[in-house]
Amino acid sequence: MTDTTDHPFLKMHGLGNDFVVLDVRQSGFALTPAMARAIADRRTGLGCDQVVVIETARSGLSDAWMSLWNADGSVTSACGNATRCVAWLLMQQAGSDHAVIETKAGLLDAEMRGDKLVAVDMGPARLDWREIPLAKPVDTLHMGIGIGSLTDPVGVSMGNPHAVFFVGDVAAIDLAALGPVLEHHDLFPERANIEVAQVLAPDRIRMRVWERGTGITSACGTGACATLVAAARRGLTARKADVVLDGGVLTIEWLPDDHVMMTGPVALVAEGMLDSSLLS
Amino acid sequence: MTDTTDHPFLKMHGLGNDFVVLDVRQSGFALTPAMARAIADRRTGLGCDQVVVIETARSGLSDAWMSLWNADGSVTSACGNATRCVAWLLMQQAGSDHAVIETKAGLLDAEMRGDKLVAVDMGPARLDWREIPLAKPVDTLHMGIGIGSLTDPVGVSMGNPHAVFFVGDVAAIDLAALGPVLEHHDLFPERANIEVAQVLAPDRIRMRVWERGTGITSACGTGACATLVAAARRGLTARKADVVLDGGVLTIEWLPDDHVMMTGPVALVAEGMLDSSLLS
Repeated sequence: MTDTTDHPFLKMHGLGNDFVVLDVRQSGFALTPAMARAIADRRTGLGCDQVVVIETARSGLSDAWMSLWNADGSVTSACGNATRCVAWLLMQQAGSDHAVIETKAGLLDAEMRGDKLVAVDMGPARLDWREIPLAKPVDTLHMGIGIGSLTDPVGVSMGNPHAVFFVGDVAAIDLAALGPVLEHHDLFPERANIEVAQVLAPDRIRMRVWERGTGITSACGTGACATLVAAARRGLTARKADVVLDGGVLTIEWLPDDHVMMTGPVALVAEGMLDSSLLS
Repeated sequence: MTDTTDHPFLKMHGLGNDFVVLDVRQSGFALTPAMARAIADRRTGLGCDQVVVIETARSGLSDAWMSLWNADGSVTSACGNATRCVAWLLMQQAGSDHAVIETKAGLLDAEMRGDKLVAVDMGPARLDWREIPLAKPVDTLHMGIGIGSLTDPVGVSMGNPHAVFFVGDVAAIDLAALGPVLEHHDLFPERANIEVAQVLAPDRIRMRVWERGTGITSACGTGACATLVAAARRGLTARKADVVLDGGVLTIEWLPDDHVMMTGPVALVAEGMLDSSLLS
């Protein structure tokens, strides 16, 4: 029942963060905000957190361009979970174990690390107070602020601001109550993502996250990176550890060149054709 | 990337009630509760309210057997929205304008009424107090019970119990508060679906529904049928009217033989192959 105005798709997810992926490199298909909303609607569309569009590379440095559309039709910047999914597809198609993806935020290097396991270079961790950014000069290793049992976080920028609080038991923290208060603390002029982290072993951290502007989510890739960097800076773990999120496990490694590698799973759920009724 | 253990699917919806439809008549594929849960999961699966399985007819009286699986893996009985979707598929395939679908609840007749518009015979309306059922002999045209601005409902069984309250403005009713109280009224030994209805014209009714055991939903086919029957019994409308639900419009006709015909839209969203990872 497909016709020429239908378009192929894949449904994928990384740690439960789910995507409808459209590879438009052959078709030249141009997504609109209305189409993104129609596709992402979980009742009347296919349903997803973001619509991911794989476009022809815009420079000679990458294998493809990736753009990400939210369910409300707005465009968002890079996402570690989507990057793993797209990188896996590109590597499968090319028979390669390496891919470079170009986004609004720059170039992302990815490597195959096993069956449906992909590593992405999330860029350098930035530790200076100006880069996070903070409102005033503060030692980002001990930022001093706090509320209740959450005290003295580590500040890390992974392109977005993070405050990582180490606690004895992440399950005992009322993150839904404390997250929004800390997100809007005066120290963070651009607000902050709030992580609570419990060191289980020198190579294993349990982490929960309050995402800036979103709330509690089951998997935040940059939050996992910031948490490992914070733990290593405090000497609580090595520079490589598994970070256990609500949605699954990411392996994070803070390389000597300051770049942070994030390794995690990708899952393919379905592939097929979107009906043309969604694409008008 | 499909392999021989993948299975074809369609994603469809009727008034926003959405389905993953598996036609297993060729494959003989046997769905399990675990697979239904995996497919219906809106993050890690394809996502839907119900998984609909089209099986080979079990009698010579029908075109196919339909079974319906909830997102929790349980099996449910017939649903008007799913029936329209499956009937449309069967009629498309057969090039026919009529289909008969067999379910646990019996045979369902369906007819094509326009482009992606399908009518389903929802069976007879039952009006006797014993058939609804009520706890004691009560005139089902004036059941007398009430709470706040909801008073004196009409009782109708469409295979399940309904109490229809006529009001001046459905938007002014706090259905989330009143629905559960009325659902559990002593008069209803098997509880009841609660409809609030506002007659807009002799051929048009605005209706909102509190579904027994579920809560407020955007579209309840049997509730729309019960509402038209109740309005016609009260002389508020003709025996045919459009019922405007939160999710869209159903045209309901109460035939002279007491059967109720429900006509509404079907929408095809996508079709493709489910990855074998969901089917193990």
